[in-house]
Amino acid sequence: MVSFENDYNTGAHPEILKKLAETNLEALSGYGTDAYCESARNKIREAVGLPDADVEFLVGGTQTNMVVISTMLGDTEGVVAAKTGHVSVHEAGAIEYTGHKVIELPSVNGKMVPADLRHYMEVFYSDETHEHMVFPGMVYLSWPTEFGTLYSKNELTEISAVCRKYGMKLFVDGARLGYGLMSPEADLTLPELAAIADVLYIGGTKVGALCGEAVVFRGGCRPKRFITSVKKRGALLAKGRLLGIQFDTLFTDDLYFRIGRHAIEMAERLKQIFEAHGIPRYIESPTNQQYVVLENKYMEKLREKVMFSFWEKIDDDHTAVRFVTSWSTTEEDLAWLDKVL
Amino acid sequence: MVSFENDYNTGAHPEILKKLAETNLEALSGYGTDAYCESARNKIREAVGLPDADVEFLVGGTQTNMVVISTMLGDTEGVVAAKTGHVSVHEAGAIEYTGHKVIELPSVNGKMVPADLRHYMEVFYSDETHEHMVFPGMVYLSWPTEFGTLYSKNELTEISAVCRKYGMKLFVDGARLGYGLMSPEADLTLPELAAIADVLYIGGTKVGALCGEAVVFRGGCRPKRFITSVKKRGALLAKGRLLGIQFDTLFTDDLYFRIGRHAIEMAERLKQIFEAHGIPRYIESPTNQQYVVLENKYMEKLREKVMFSFWEKIDDDHTAVRFVTSWSTTEEDLAWLDKVL
Amino acid sequence: MVSFENDYNTGAHPEILKKLAETNLEALSGYGTDAYCESARNKIREAVGLPDADVEFLVGGTQTNMVVISTMLGDTEGVVAAKTGHVSVHEAGAIEYTGHKVIELPSVNGKMVPADLRHYMEVFYSDETHEHMVFPGMVYLSWPTEFGTLYSKNELTEISAVCRKYGMKLFVDGARLGYGLMSPEADLTLPELAAIADVLYIGGTKVGALCGEAVVFRGGCRPKRFITSVKKRGALLAKGRLLGIQFDTLFTDDLYFRIGRHAIEMAERLKQIFEAHGIPRYIESPTNQQYVVLENKYMEKLREKVMFSFWEKIDDDHTAVRFVTSWSTTEEDLAWLDKVL
Amino acid sequence: MVSFENDYNTGAHPEILKKLAETNLEALSGYGTDAYCESARNKIREAVGLPDADVEFLVGGTQTNMVVISTMLGDTEGVVAAKTGHVSVHEAGAIEYTGHKVIELPSVNGKMVPADLRHYMEVFYSDETHEHMVFPGMVYLSWPTEFGTLYSKNELTEISAVCRKYGMKLFVDGARLGYGLMSPEADLTLPELAAIADVLYIGGTKVGALCGEAVVFRGGCRPKRFITSVKKRGALLAKGRLLGIQFDTLFTDDLYFRIGRHAIEMAERLKQIFEAHGIPRYIESPTNQQYVVLENKYMEKLREKVMFSFWEKIDDDHTAVRFVTSWSTTEEDLAWLDKVL
Repeated sequence: MVSFENDYNTGAHPEILKKLAETNLEALSGYGTDAYCESARNKIREAVGLPDADVEFLVGGTQTNMVVISTMLGDTEGVVAAKTGHVSVHEAGAIEYTGHKVIELPSVNGKMVPADLRHYMEVFYSDETHEHMVFPGMVYLSWPTEFGTLYSKNELTEISAVCRKYGMKLFVDGARLGYGLMSPEADLTLPELAAIADVLYIGGTKVGALCGEAVVFRGGCRPKRFITSVKKRGALLAKGRLLGIQFDTLFTDDLYFRIGRHAIEMAERLKQIFEAHGIPRYIESPTNQQYVVLENKYMEKLREKVMFSFWEKIDDDHTAVRFVTSWSTTEEDLAWLDKVL
Repeated sequence: MVSFENDYNTGAHPEILKKLAETNLEALSGYGTDAYCESARNKIREAVGLPDADVEFLVGGTQTNMVVISTMLGDTEGVVAAKTGHVSVHEAGAIEYTGHKVIELPSVNGKMVPADLRHYMEVFYSDETHEHMVFPGMVYLSWPTEFGTLYSKNELTEISAVCRKYGMKLFVDGARLGYGLMSPEADLTLPELAAIADVLYIGGTKVGALCGEAVVFRGGCRPKRFITSVKKRGALLAKGRLLGIQFDTLFTDDLYFRIGRHAIEMAERLKQIFEAHGIPRYIESPTNQQYVVLENKYMEKLREKVMFSFWEKIDDDHTAVRFVTSWSTTEEDLAWLDKVL
Repeated sequence: MVSFENDYNTGAHPEILKKLAETNLEALSGYGTDAYCESARNKIREAVGLPDADVEFLVGGTQTNMVVISTMLGDTEGVVAAKTGHVSVHEAGAIEYTGHKVIELPSVNGKMVPADLRHYMEVFYSDETHEHMVFPGMVYLSWPTEFGTLYSKNELTEISAVCRKYGMKLFVDGARLGYGLMSPEADLTLPELAAIADVLYIGGTKVGALCGEAVVFRGGCRPKRFITSVKKRGALLAKGRLLGIQFDTLFTDDLYFRIGRHAIEMAERLKQIFEAHGIPRYIESPTNQQYVVLENKYMEKLREKVMFSFWEKIDDDHTAVRFVTSWSTTEEDLAWLDKVL
Repeated sequence: MVSFENDYNTGAHPEILKKLAETNLEALSGYGTDAYCESARNKIREAVGLPDADVEFLVGGTQTNMVVISTMLGDTEGVVAAKTGHVSVHEAGAIEYTGHKVIELPSVNGKMVPADLRHYMEVFYSDETHEHMVFPGMVYLSWPTEFGTLYSKNELTEISAVCRKYGMKLFVDGARLGYGLMSPEADLTLPELAAIADVLYIGGTKVGALCGEAVVFRGGCRPKRFITSVKKRGALLAKGRLLGIQFDTLFTDDLYFRIGRHAIEMAERLKQIFEAHGIPRYIESPTNQQYVVLENKYMEKLREKVMFSFWEKIDDDHTAVRFVTSWSTTEEDLAWLDKVL
């Protein structure tokens, strides 16, 4: 069946599989010390425009958030995030498992509002009892967000200014970074984004890899003995080559950006198809996740012909649902959808 | 200087000090196994009307919340609390330190709204992705709350019904329990409260003891090998007698309730004094914590004559402040306040 | 360069890569709910002879040990392991990170001695202060061990008897299980081993997969809401297919056992080659890891022609080193070694 | 019954109780910010000869070990201790609960051997896989040890030299410090000991207080935002006065040392009594804990007349037992023992 369920429902981009097969018999050292990891690191440093950045590879998104946040926060610190952020809701308490609180701010279309962050910080430090509270030590935001929306360059700059004022780190979760960068509404480039963040991760799992996320620490930001901390969290992959080869391929001949562009084109077409069929949008999303409102009976019938995912109950008769494109979405998939809507 | 700063600014009720001195040279076994602990347990079981309850003594409030919550929750569970609950704000992340999320609900006058809890639970279990979320495993509420307010019997019954429906434990933080029970607005007795909760703690630190909280587990609710879990959290007192003797005294000749009644009387008088001076209340509190609004200049002058605590900035010219009574508040203290206001 | 460095230095067995490519465009559900995972689970249940076992897939060995141990232990419990066990030494404290102690017993050739375990348990429960100590809640052993050795069926039965007597779980780390089962010295089958353990894991990473370990819980032993616990530890793979397809392939046409047999044959040949060259063994290992003693100068020269790994310094002139075979070791590799020794 | 069971079986030294009563009605600020805490800090700084030390008060011994170790270690570090150290055995895994491993060294009469420590460190850093292991970040030792023995100044200097060489902190657990300092075998003073350690704690619970331990951080060693970290671990006492007043009293007119001297005198007499009765020692202890070997039948009869504690089974007919003196041991207690032996 044609599926728009999510952006991790198919395998890997064929160029990745090809490279894995070609290198399969090479004997390589483990744990991220092989030549492919090194090559991928160099290519990523170039792509983000930070020659002295440290690049490390991890397996999945929740794992990456957990490792980055828990190794960069001090003992008395928590991470500030929008109430709808992945770390706030959909990681089963992985951040708390490491002993740190997620301090939740209101969410507007999946984004925290810079003014809310500033206000939180002012109230915090003016509270005479703040020694008994969790110190905000980092701001977490996802770009694109869990609702497909994007912080503008202005918003990011404002958030970054608050972070600097109060000595907080700024961490950008780029699980779907490729789709954000290629969005028509993105008003900043990868190097511009990387220049604002203290640490960001470039998502592989949702952008064409079998698994893998690349963490980019601005020069000097990587925690001491990071590999040991990764190991301690059960997150160090023995065959680090699996991550190195995939990211080396993704950052060769702009594959990462080609995948992003393709999915965005497919998503724009998706919007047009929904519009043509008079199906209302639920959120204005400029990236590869599209949200529409369906009448329940219609939804049930549609589900027999195409896969998509439940998002939120709206009322007794209507449901918000999500359609997602990726590297593997085809013209045929769209044509089929157009036909069955 | 006369102080209404909080309810833990003086030592212990004199009857407690007397008993500590009388028993000082008796050689007793450690870690809560002495005869005074046993006697205190029996008196508390009688006071709460639960003959098969398990009673355990801990040193302080945050420690008690942390020990109770972390030993009663399952690995995948978090605790639901009002956004203003002590565990949510003023414990420096102690619950998260044990690996569990505090799931925050809106707070109205320091209380969670039963309907909000019910709604949260319905949405949680109807969300298809809830396996990726923290399961609500316990409800935490403070009685009285951090704002001096009290849940009514009806509200507690409604919350308890939601807990039973979804298999959640109900934990009542009674750091100031004595002041709640003696409040003119309390519409339930200690046995009635204990019958609703799965576990509650009877606060000693803020109700006349040097330190100490008594945890009451409804029969069958005490976690297995509880003493070892307490030790593991650095919370097992070697000279357990210090807790046993204090609670044995507090539950002899109704001392606990006499302390509560005295402080409530003093608080009622405090209200009258503020009213007589035309000082507006900030919150309607029926217990020993009273909140009023002061003009900043006036507040600064008052601070030279009497101690109270900052609560919240209201606007550039006004501040909400807190005055607290306790076992040690005297007629003279009130007379002085009346004079200097 | 020819490499005997370890059993995870090459990619995946070609049959696995082939299957990954064939299934690449299929849209599958995530997080281990796809049809390949289901098929793999069934094949594994059959291979271990436990129709009601629960089979779950994780990414790596340390992660698996951490997840299994921390979800199966109670709050007051620790895991007993040989001093040389992987969890004791080479996991950077991953078990302790979850809040549990590794209780170390003496190691003889990489194995705990059943009598030592029994003695430890007897002393523990006869110690009047044991409530202040970590309760032994599980026994961890690796089969084969980190030294390539194997517990006999008798030894395992004795250890299991102690576990049952004291209510401890028995966990078998089978990172190299395939090599143990095919060893000429193995005196039990996979179903016999699975019948003794409460939980065991079948290693993929070191036996031909790109990554992945399959945990087999005896019926009724899987922790409640296991998937949520996995997610909470950052260990849930989005594209669960990557694990399902690999294990489905490994347990099709006996591939797992064929890989094991091949590596064991190569290891036996390795022994003969060393013997022929008069190079002394360091430990008697019946599996795919072979340990020999080299003179330091000779070792340095050899390193220019073949890769192997440092094991232990013996004296100022001699070093113990490790040579490992795997699915990808070839006749040519052995011939080269024979030539350059 | 006369009791030599331990050094925490009676209440507090009468001078402490007197001071608690005298100050009882003073309104003081909470959490260790009162004038008595400040006075106690100054007196302790003087006693240890470190004008710029930071002194903080905690409630109990295990809590202190847990707080100090977990706030001073880095993420990848563990603490090295003798196998018989309190943190290794009798804290129910409190250190591991904070996510850190206790690395156990052999114990000789309760002490680690400096040469063993040096050897451990050399092997650790020469192991090529040490990035996958727990880094030794601190050495923990108790003075006196759990066996009543004392490290000599030479031994401490050697251990300290290893710590400096490898960048490890040295932490001295002084739960029974007063008894060590007054021992005839102590060959160093409190300032000399404090000059060797990076952090040490001066035990109150076992040296005359109701509860309380004073942590002395050498200048610059106190972890950032220490109070918040203490709160996070549930270890911050609301009525900090309870600790301040006790330590202020203990360090007034040499009370702490008078208590130590008295208990040591009683212990020396105890030794003579055992010798006179031909009862063999189990360990040579120069402090307030004395260990002797009793025939089991004799032991059972003695238990009806005097309290002491089980230490270890020796053989089927003999048991090692412990007799302990403290501030409250009297001439009459000794005379009684002499009579009933």
